[in-house]
Amino acid sequence: ATGLGSSSLRFEEKPNFVILLMDDMGWGDLGVFGEPSKETPNLDQMAAEGMLFPDFYSANPICSPSRASLLSGRLPIRNGFYTTNKLGHDAYTPQVIVGGIPDEEILLPELLQKHGYRNKIIGKWHLGQQPQYHPLKHGFDEWFGAPNCHFGPFDDKKTPNIPVYKDADMVGRYYEDFLIDRKTGESNLTQIYIKEATSFIEAQTTKGQPFFLYWAVDATHEPVYASRDFLGTSRRGLYGDAVRELDSGVGEILATLQRLGVDKNTLVFFTSDNGAATYAKTNGGSNGPFLCGKQTTFEGGSREPTIAWWPGHISPGQVSKQTGSLMDFFSTFLDLASIPAPADRAIDGISLRSALLHSNVTDRPIFYYRGDLLMAARLGQYKAHLWTWTNGLEEYHKGIDFCPGENVEGLTTHKQTNHTDSPLLIDLGADPGEKYIIKPHSSVYRKEMPAILEAVSKHLSGLKPGVPQLNWCDSAVMNWAPQGCEKLGRCLPAPKSQPYKCVWPH
Amino acid sequence: ATGLGSSSLRFEEKPNFVILLMDDMGWGDLGVFGEPSKETPNLDQMAAEGMLFPDFYSANPICSPSRASLLSGRLPIRNGFYTTNKLGHDAYTPQVIVGGIPDEEILLPELLQKHGYRNKIIGKWHLGQQPQYHPLKHGFDEWFGAPNCHFGPFDDKKTPNIPVYKDADMVGRYYEDFLIDRKTGESNLTQIYIKEATSFIEAQTTKGQPFFLYWAVDATHEPVYASRDFLGTSRRGLYGDAVRELDSGVGEILATLQRLGVDKNTLVFFTSDNGAATYAKTNGGSNGPFLCGKQTTFEGGSREPTIAWWPGHISPGQVSKQTGSLMDFFSTFLDLASIPAPADRAIDGISLRSALLHSNVTDRPIFYYRGDLLMAARLGQYKAHLWTWTNGLEEYHKGIDFCPGENVEGLTTHKQTNHTDSPLLIDLGADPGEKYIIKPHSSVYRKEMPAILEAVSKHLSGLKPGVPQLNWCDSAVMNWAPQGCEKLGRCLPAPKSQPYKCVWPH
Ligand SMILES: [Ca+2]
Ligand SMILES: [Ca+2]
Repeated sequence: ATGLGSSSLRFEEKPNFVILLMDDMGWGDLGVFGEPSKETPNLDQMAAEGMLFPDFYSANPICSPSRASLLSGRLPIRNGFYTTNKLGHDAYTPQVIVGGIPDEEILLPELLQKHGYRNKIIGKWHLGQQPQYHPLKHGFDEWFGAPNCHFGPFDDKKTPNIPVYKDADMVGRYYEDFLIDRKTGESNLTQIYIKEATSFIEAQTTKGQPFFLYWAVDATHEPVYASRDFLGTSRRGLYGDAVRELDSGVGEILATLQRLGVDKNTLVFFTSDNGAATYAKTNGGSNGPFLCGKQTTFEGGSREPTIAWWPGHISPGQVSKQTGSLMDFFSTFLDLASIPAPADRAIDGISLRSALLHSNVTDRPIFYYRGDLLMAARLGQYKAHLWTWTNGLEEYHKGIDFCPGENVEGLTTHKQTNHTDSPLLIDLGADPGEKYIIKPHSSVYRKEMPAILEAVSKHLSGLKPGVPQLNWCDSAVMNWAPQGCEKLGRCLPAPKSQPYKCVWPH
Repeated sequence: ATGLGSSSLRFEEKPNFVILLMDDMGWGDLGVFGEPSKETPNLDQMAAEGMLFPDFYSANPICSPSRASLLSGRLPIRNGFYTTNKLGHDAYTPQVIVGGIPDEEILLPELLQKHGYRNKIIGKWHLGQQPQYHPLKHGFDEWFGAPNCHFGPFDDKKTPNIPVYKDADMVGRYYEDFLIDRKTGESNLTQIYIKEATSFIEAQTTKGQPFFLYWAVDATHEPVYASRDFLGTSRRGLYGDAVRELDSGVGEILATLQRLGVDKNTLVFFTSDNGAATYAKTNGGSNGPFLCGKQTTFEGGSREPTIAWWPGHISPGQVSKQTGSLMDFFSTFLDLASIPAPADRAIDGISLRSALLHSNVTDRPIFYYRGDLLMAARLGQYKAHLWTWTNGLEEYHKGIDFCPGENVEGLTTHKQTNHTDSPLLIDLGADPGEKYIIKPHSSVYRKEMPAILEAVSKHLSGLKPGVPQLNWCDSAVMNWAPQGCEKLGRCLPAPKSQPYKCVWPH
C-alpha cells in the first residue's frame, strides 16, 4: 500500500491534532487487534479508514511517566518522571507526590500554543497536582478533568477526594459531585468527556483556529466505570462495557470532525498509556498474545493499540511496519505544523510523517525503562532483555501478579536479575509472546545482538538523567484546597508538611 | 448489522460450496484475529467482505478426528474416530493405522454427489489410507493429495514415503516426486494445490454443474513449507512464510470465483482443523490470547479462525456472535442445497443459515472431547471443564509442552484430573484465556453451571459411541503398494501383517 505523495500535503492552514489516549487499555482490547468478542466497531472502522500501528510503544509501563514522555517527547529518565528511591521501581503521581512536570521541560502544547494553536486536555493530567504543575501552566488553554487518578471515595479528612477542574478552577470532587458507583460501576463521566471533546472541536471550527485536543479518558483504569446505557452490554463484564463506551466516544468524535468538514485537516491518533493491568484479573483489560502487563517491560506492559486517522492524507486500510512510540506524537506534530523542535536537548521521539504519508519505515531503537533502570531494548524485530523482573516475591505472595497464568523461565523472574553481560534475545516477529529465549551461541544472536548493544551503548553514553521528581511524598500537598474551592466553600484543612521518601513496592 | 432477507435467497441453481481448511493454523495466525505482524491481507479482506466467526470450534483438537467430524457432521465419539486404548488420549491416522472412516458414516460429499454436485478434495484426507477408506469411495469425484500427513523423508524399506494421489491412482510420493526440502523448507506444493483449485472451479463453471471443493492444504503442519517466492518474506520465519502463501492462495481462489462470476453463488468457509501446535514453539502457529494448543481441549486447541464469504448473501464486515463448529458445515450446506439430512442418526452440526443470512444467534452447546472422554462443555459464553489435562509428566519431561510459558493452577494439569463432581467454570467472555476459575459458591456459578450440566447430561444419555477406529496399528497396512503403483513401477513389498494396539502417548 502506498501513501499519498507529499505534493498533496499542502497545509494552507495548520493541521489540527487529536490524541485519544486510553488509560490501562491493552493492545488486545480492540477487535482489530484480536479481542475475541470484537466489540469495538468504531475503532475497527477507524483502522479500516486509517493506519494501524501494531508495533507502537509507551515510554513507560505506567501512567504518569508514560504521559510525561508523550507530552515532552522525552524518556522519563530525562524529564524526571522516575524515582531513585529504589533501583528499577515504578513510580507515578499519587496525590501525596511532591513533584510534577519540571518547568524546564518544554511540552508539546507549549510549542503549539506559541504557534497559534488552542489546546485542551480532557480527563486525567497525572503530571503533578500541585498548582505549579497544572496543565494551564504548561501550555493547555482549557482543561476539564482531574490531576490524579479517580481513586476513592475518600473521607476528606485523612485523604481528600480528587478534585475535578474546569480550566484553572476546581468545579467539584469525585464521589461527591462527579459520581462513580463503586458497586455497579455506573458513572456518566465518559459521556461528559465526549461532550467536552465535541464542544471544543465545534468551538474551534467556528473560530477557525487550529487546535490540539488531548482526550485523556480513564474509564478503563480502576475503578472501571461506564454509564447506564452501556452497563451490561459487553460480553466482557464492566471492563468491556467501559471499552464499548469509549469506542462509541471515538466514533462520536470522528463523526464530529467529519460533520464539521475538518476531518481532512485533523490528524487523530488513538492509543493507550500503558499495557492492560493484568493484576486486576477480569477487571482489567487484555494484552492479546503479549506477555504480562502494566508495570512490566514485557510487551504486555509496553505495546499500545495505536491507530492513526487522517482522511485524504493517510491512505485507508494500511498496516504500518514502523516501530513507534507515544513520544513520536511530539516530533510528528511539530513536523507537520512546521514548528522547530527544541534544539537544546535530546528528543526521543521521531517524526512519523514519512510513515504516515508514504508508508516508509525508519529504523529506530525502543528503550524499555522501569524507573531509573534500562530493562530492555528493541531494534528491528529483536528485543534484548538487559534486566528481567516482574515483582518481588513479597508482593507476589500478597496476590499481586503481573503475569497471571504465565511463567517463562528466565524471563518472568521475581528477582531483579541483571543480564547485561549476556542479554536475553527475543525474536518479536516469530515470538511476540516472548516465550523462547534465543541461545547466545546461535547465529541469530551473534547477528542481531551487537547492533542492539551498540544502540544501548550510544543511548547510555549520551544520557543526562533529569532530576527525579517522584522521590518525595507529603500529605500536605494533597488536593485539600484546590484553586476555586473558596468560591464553592469546599476547601479542606491541610495537615502540616511532613515530607517522606515515597514507597514504591514494584 | 442485518443480513439479507430470505426472500432474496432464491436458489435457481444450487449454491457451490468451498471449504478452505488449514492444518494446525491457529486462531491467532490471522491479522484479523490479532497476529501482530498482520501478514494476511487476503484473509483480512475476506473477513471485511464476509462474516467473521470468533467463536468457532473444531470437534477435536487433532487432525483426523476433526476432519472426520467435519465431513460427517458428527462427533468423533459417534463416527469412530477415537481410541479406547487409553482413556482420553488423542489418536489420529498415521499410516500404520488399520481403521478409517466407516462405511456406515454418511459423508457430506456423498449426499451432495447424490444431488448433482461434483466434489473435489485437494490436499490431506486423513480418514484412513487403506483403499476402502479413500475419498473416491466416500463421495468425492476427484482427489489431488495424500492420505496421510507429509512426514518424511522415509527409507521406503521400514516405512514407505507417503503417496500423492490424482483421483484413484497414486502419481508419486512425497520427497521423491513431490519435494519438500527439509533444510530450507522449500516446496511448491501449495502452488500446486492453488492451481488444482482454480482449475476445478473453472471446469465446473464451464460445465455449469454445482460443486463442492474441499481445499485441505497442509503447509502449516509440520514439516512446514513454502515455495521459493515466499521463503523469507514473513517476519515470523518459515511458519509465517507458509501462512503468507496460503493467504495468497485464498486470494487467488476468491478472485477466480469473482472473475468467473460465480462468487454470488458460492459459499466459502475458511477455517482450520485444530489449534496451533504450540509444542512446535516458533515452528508452529499462534493461538492468540487462548490457552495452550493442539492436542488439548483448552481454547487454544479447539477454537478456529473462521470466516464465511458469500457476496450478495452475507452482508460484508459482520462479526457473528454464533458459537459454531466445523460440524456445522455438514448441516448448513445440506440446508442451503435443500438436501434432507440423515434422519436415522444423531447429527451434531447445526445449520448456520440463519446466522449467515440474518445475523441470528442460536443457542447450542459445544462438547470438547479428547479421545473417548468428554473433557469440557460450553454453553453461551461459559465453559465447564469436567476433566483437565495437558499431557503426562513423562512426555512433558521429554520436552513436549502443549502450553509453553503458560501455567494456570488447577487447569493445565499434567494428571488427568476428574472434576465432574464440581466442574471448573470459566467465563470465556471476560476471560478468553482461561486463567480465572470461577468459585463454585459464586452466584455466577450457581446460575450458569446447571444449564451446562443439563446439556452434558442430555448429550451423554443419548450417546451411542461408534466402533473405535483408532485402536489398531499394523505395518502391513502402510502405503506400500497404492493403487497405480504398478503403472509407475513404484510398488514396494509389504511386510507380513502383525496388528498391535496403537500407542497414543497423549
Ligand atoms: Ca495507565
Ligand atoms: Ca491438524
